[in-house]
Amino acid sequence: MGWGDLGVFGQPSKETPNLDAMAAEGMLLPDFYTANPLCSPSRAALLTGRLPVRNGFYTTNAHARNAYTPQEIVGGISKDEILLPQMLKRKGYVSKIVGKWHLGHRPQHLPLENGFDEWFGAPNCHFGPYNSSIRPNIPVYNNSEMVGRYYEEFQIDRKTGESNLTQIYLQEGLDFILRQTQAQKPFFLYWAPDATHAPVYASKRFLGKSQRGRYGDAVMELDYSIGQILSHLRTLGIENNTFVFLTSDNGAALTSGPNESGSNGPFLCGKETTYEGGMREPAIAWWPGHIKEGTVNFQLANVMDLFTTSLALAGVSPPDDRTLDGLDLTQVLLNHSQTLESRPIFYYRGNELMAVRLGQYKAHYWTWSNSWDELKQGINFCPGQEVPGLTTHDQKEHTLQPLIFHLGRDPGEKFPISVLTKEYRDVLRRISPVVELHKKTLLPGIPQLNMCDVAVMNWAPAGCKKLGKCLKVPKSAPWKCDWPH
Amino acid sequence: MGWGDLGVFGQPSKETPNLDAMAAEGMLLPDFYTANPLCSPSRAALLTGRLPVRNGFYTTNAHARNAYTPQEIVGGISKDEILLPQMLKRKGYVSKIVGKWHLGHRPQHLPLENGFDEWFGAPNCHFGPYNSSIRPNIPVYNNSEMVGRYYEEFQIDRKTGESNLTQIYLQEGLDFILRQTQAQKPFFLYWAPDATHAPVYASKRFLGKSQRGRYGDAVMELDYSIGQILSHLRTLGIENNTFVFLTSDNGAALTSGPNESGSNGPFLCGKETTYEGGMREPAIAWWPGHIKEGTVNFQLANVMDLFTTSLALAGVSPPDDRTLDGLDLTQVLLNHSQTLESRPIFYYRGNELMAVRLGQYKAHYWTWSNSWDELKQGINFCPGQEVPGLTTHDQKEHTLQPLIFHLGRDPGEKFPISVLTKEYRDVLRRISPVVELHKKTLLPGIPQLNMCDVAVMNWAPAGCKKLGKCLKVPKSAPWKCDWPH
Repeated sequence: MGWGDLGVFGQPSKETPNLDAMAAEGMLLPDFYTANPLCSPSRAALLTGRLPVRNGFYTTNAHARNAYTPQEIVGGISKDEILLPQMLKRKGYVSKIVGKWHLGHRPQHLPLENGFDEWFGAPNCHFGPYNSSIRPNIPVYNNSEMVGRYYEEFQIDRKTGESNLTQIYLQEGLDFILRQTQAQKPFFLYWAPDATHAPVYASKRFLGKSQRGRYGDAVMELDYSIGQILSHLRTLGIENNTFVFLTSDNGAALTSGPNESGSNGPFLCGKETTYEGGMREPAIAWWPGHIKEGTVNFQLANVMDLFTTSLALAGVSPPDDRTLDGLDLTQVLLNHSQTLESRPIFYYRGNELMAVRLGQYKAHYWTWSNSWDELKQGINFCPGQEVPGLTTHDQKEHTLQPLIFHLGRDPGEKFPISVLTKEYRDVLRRISPVVELHKKTLLPGIPQLNMCDVAVMNWAPAGCKKLGKCLKVPKSAPWKCDWPH
Repeated sequence: MGWGDLGVFGQPSKETPNLDAMAAEGMLLPDFYTANPLCSPSRAALLTGRLPVRNGFYTTNAHARNAYTPQEIVGGISKDEILLPQMLKRKGYVSKIVGKWHLGHRPQHLPLENGFDEWFGAPNCHFGPYNSSIRPNIPVYNNSEMVGRYYEEFQIDRKTGESNLTQIYLQEGLDFILRQTQAQKPFFLYWAPDATHAPVYASKRFLGKSQRGRYGDAVMELDYSIGQILSHLRTLGIENNTFVFLTSDNGAALTSGPNESGSNGPFLCGKETTYEGGMREPAIAWWPGHIKEGTVNFQLANVMDLFTTSLALAGVSPPDDRTLDGLDLTQVLLNHSQTLESRPIFYYRGNELMAVRLGQYKAHYWTWSNSWDELKQGINFCPGQEVPGLTTHDQKEHTLQPLIFHLGRDPGEKFPISVLTKEYRDVLRRISPVVELHKKTLLPGIPQLNMCDVAVMNWAPAGCKKLGKCLKVPKSAPWKCDWPH
């Protein structure tokens, strides 16, 4: 989902009454970022509080390439990482993930092996080719065993776009909340539905309801579902004791546009890029009685802060044997202080620090939208947009003279500040030491997303025998994954 | 001001608390349009309820050119037109315009000659060259006599951006409201400040306050001022008897970016163009006790509807001797019916119908951003944006096969619908008769914006003698105005 998909963030169709109400009852964070312009690394960062370049969710197969966890990936979340549910367990929290996991799909990488007590959902995206010949359909797990596959037991009608998946995920979430409340257990629910990802689907009651086509239908269903979750908390009387945060793992994928793509509002480009459209995310914090209603806070923040903040709220000390990238936002959320000290936002693409934001200024050290080859194939991460020198189709280095933008005056990154100005020199003088320190102290993790193998696909997941859904596993033939962008 | 300049319409800086509150207390209209992508014709349309091509606010000097009322213009609003204040007078309304008039600056064209009872403001924009050598500075009028000039008695500090103009205009508005309320007179206040137009200014207490630079400061001051006006109405106890509408005369002028330009949110290009960024406007209707609070209405509407709607609210029958383009929105605003029947929006540039919107579909019959010549000079109406075939730098005709976009799925006009689809054929079949009927029945008015003359400039406006501010009028030497875009 993109920043501009919510009414409260300027979507012209204004079809998110529940999320808009959530913002009115809570705090809006217009300057909130994900850790990476695509799914898996962002989710790994959320759960570890660490940049993908530290937690291993990146590739070194080529320079500055986006990598994630398709079925052929060999790697996944490293055992050396400590995940949020593992930390929360220290205070007796019960944790569940509902929906897409995306931190690896081999047995050792799955949620229940990494701190979660429950899981209902799928390890990968609901990609095709929709029959199990060349590649298996993605399994849906209930805890540690599969209960079916997408396009088989869990229908997604490719033609009509109809699927009950979000409703199923909603029920799983509501049920978990109810059970923990009844058991008087503290809980962490990571509700990670895979709508609005392409191929886009929605259930029958939402199909055709949006002004925005099928993508808008999916947004409406998410909006409805989150409304149901919040209202469930109120019904159970635990709304004053439950911290809820809404965000997304990357900007809207503009290359799926217009039918299967959302909106990044006024921001440049989208998913897969380190322009604002790729990493600035919708963000709402909600906690009646604690977070003041109707507030807007311009703290520069990101998904890794949610790791640190959640630990602080739960009274758990963060791990002290590793570098964490997340800050504790408690003071900001509870409005004791307006914002924390100036902190940078790092925009990585794979193994490269592409850009840095400090205050209102963003400096691009490397620029790349996507390759000429991909562009010729019709893959365009910046459709209808072209900022000379910035949305380049070759990887361009600007280390000695980064392109600098003022995101307040120019949120769309259209007007680079002239290198001849005092403003440019002043900003560069402030940003350079931040970048230098970051690079000097950075210990990259072992890259987990380098190797691929057809044998590791979801041919025969745990539980497949019971269902008679095991497929023949082909012979192992590993290769270095090809990450084209 | 652009659609995206308001927090409620997605401005990331969220610096318009008063306008956002106005929307929360009233009705937001996300599908509201001006009549033309620039100032004078839009304002003429607002006050006449008629398209510029009917009321004469266009040029035939060249094809599809934007024209307005700079100092050298000979023409102005025609005596054949009937203006809103003239109609309202039939029910005893007292009318005042505060701020920029822009319907011509020769004596016969000024507000008090055209239905207004009072005026405080200027006939033209506050353009330079800031001394009265080549061209005079623009006079500021109090009713029918000048009281000074911009950059002289009415200071605008070009360097610091400081000017008290908006505060002066605010006081003029508040004072007028107070006087009419005390006199128990029905009134029409056309509060038309010329902030945020470039050169951008704000008064001291707002300078430097915005995250968005000087333009944002000006927006904050307008926001504050409108908050003051609404609160004044409440203090006087007339809020339930006063209909207030906020809108803008064109999209943000992106070519002034980033320091003196606003945001058109997710929409394409800006001022001077017939893409959405040029003509989709922020719009809020406010009338406590009558317009339901917190509503959003997707009625396709425009500034010409304000003419017709105002007459309906005042109980005045609209003129029946001419074609009006405005609809009566009373039923929509008072929420008796959700939207009126499907009505088209016409996007004109000068004498050419460039595009038409019907429902969610917009068909471009002519495309043009600006000329190659201007582009080479650094004038760019679509900075950082380029939609192949749409943002053309030559005037391109597409009459036989218009480019069609679905503005719900694709508000940014990035993805033309393929001409090979059934959707395209269906839409064209519905739009074509609308266009045909419009063209067949259209009687263009006599173009008022063709002739220029250095002698008609504001050398010696009424009242100049008293002030010793008369300048020598040069010899008349009329020429056909050059409208480059």
